Amino acid sequence: MRWMRFTAAGKTAYGIVEGDRVGEVRGDPFSDYERTGRSHAVGDVKFEVPIEPKTFYAVGFNYPEHVIEMAKLRGVEPDLPKSPNVGYRANNALIAHHEAIVVPKDASEQVQYEGELAVIIAKQAKYLSEDDALSCVLGYTIGNDVSERTWQGEDRTLWRAKNTDTFAPMGPWIETDVNLEALETTVRVNGEVHSQFRTNAMLFGVAKFISTITQYITLHPGDMIWMGTDGTSPNLKAGDVVDIEISGIGTLSNPVVDQT
Amino acid sequence: MRWMRFTAAGKTAYGIVEGDRVGEVRGDPFSDYERTGRSHAVGDVKFEVPIEPKTFYAVGFNYPEHVIEMAKLRGVEPDLPKSPNVGYRANNALIAHHEAIVVPKDASEQVQYEGELAVIIAKQAKYLSEDDALSCVLGYTIGNDVSERTWQGEDRTLWRAKNTDTFAPMGPWIETDVNLEALETTVRVNGEVHSQFRTNAMLFGVAKFISTITQYITLHPGDMIWMGTDGTSPNLKAGDVVDIEISGIGTLSNPVVDQT
Repeated sequence: MRWMRFTAAGKTAYGIVEGDRVGEVRGDPFSDYERTGRSHAVGDVKFEVPIEPKTFYAVGFNYPEHVIEMAKLRGVEPDLPKSPNVGYRANNALIAHHEAIVVPKDASEQVQYEGELAVIIAKQAKYLSEDDALSCVLGYTIGNDVSERTWQGEDRTLWRAKNTDTFAPMGPWIETDVNLEALETTVRVNGEVHSQFRTNAMLFGVAKFISTITQYITLHPGDMIWMGTDGTSPNLKAGDVVDIEISGIGTLSNPVVDQT
Repeated sequence: MRWMRFTAAGKTAYGIVEGDRVGEVRGDPFSDYERTGRSHAVGDVKFEVPIEPKTFYAVGFNYPEHVIEMAKLRGVEPDLPKSPNVGYRANNALIAHHEAIVVPKDASEQVQYEGELAVIIAKQAKYLSEDDALSCVLGYTIGNDVSERTWQGEDRTLWRAKNTDTFAPMGPWIETDVNLEALETTVRVNGEVHSQFRTNAMLFGVAKFISTITQYITLHPGDMIWMGTDGTSPNLKAGDVVDIEISGIGTLSNPVVDQT
């Protein structure tokens, strides 16, 4: 099942995508819902972020090549994580499919994409074993963890490097039927492939992270976990369009503009 | 004005505290509200966290003595921040006034308090000058940024050191009439004073942080910023009661228990 959140005729709602139509529901996938009987052409509605998460978790350093590249940025030796430690991002940065990534006036040229698998939590969860961990998952969408690398290297936290307004494109929808092992992430800038990697080639996978987190932390319906990225990105500039495709989920596409 | 959030007769609502009574309202302080005419004795209601924030910002390293003590913990030279960099915490950890801090079975003995001023945002804000920064603030409450120091020293992020369930007591209410310069923070364990400091003796104050954040990030009604702490804490153990008082706001009191 494919859940999208959209606005049509001034009203924002969840809907279920079937082919090129979205069937509007009352309610949401985290509690109760019923079909309204109304449907829209997907091409006619405005995409909204599929969820405004209660808590926005984000994993860093979860693919080996990316760890090595980020160590170079900081001028330190790469240090592969020995245990799954999760971090946090903030909702102010979220934008939907097709919305513009806005590069601040004082940003350097090093504004880069990070294509990530995003895990959407459906059920309250604590003390899950790794075998049971995926039982709390509703489905998966795509995130672009846009990063300004000079701020990432210089600031004490990732507050503006990764949480500047518009730096967290997400969408286009939540896919509930996913075989994690089969997924491939492909990132294109202006149609040209710049990154391609097996999505599940993580140091610590989705089940391992959920199991570990829930030994200390209660996950809630509507929480979200971004799983990190592999490889590196070219610098993005105004006029570029970044497409992040994860096979079996869809493609998240966002243009880049300069702050005016 | 003093806003509290409480449950009485199975219903959770906001109310306005006047003396030892709380006058129930319909709505909340972030949008519209009206008094219902019902009131309760403050001593008869259950305190709830005054807000479940949209984004939970938290400042680290904002008082000189605390920076020095935390550097000792990591075995590094103290490095006073040169600019205000904000971090993030998560709502799962929040508990209300009088609720219990639960120490996990595998925690070390080094579970410690951090008494903090908490800033509650009332209005959407971007590009605020330092002079205008406080115009977006609704008021102030008290936070206890409970920290397990071995996890803080060893983990790559603060996920369980500071975000384990129950590790973020907050309350008892939001006070809107506050003179920041006059505030004093006093922390008592079992009635004995362990920390006392001028709340506003921060490296970077509330206005400086809000102004800096909003150059990149939109603050929203219902966002919250914890401002960091000074000094050090003894290790807390089951049976202790931690009271964090900020003069002019109130006292946040929480017992400590072991995970069963």
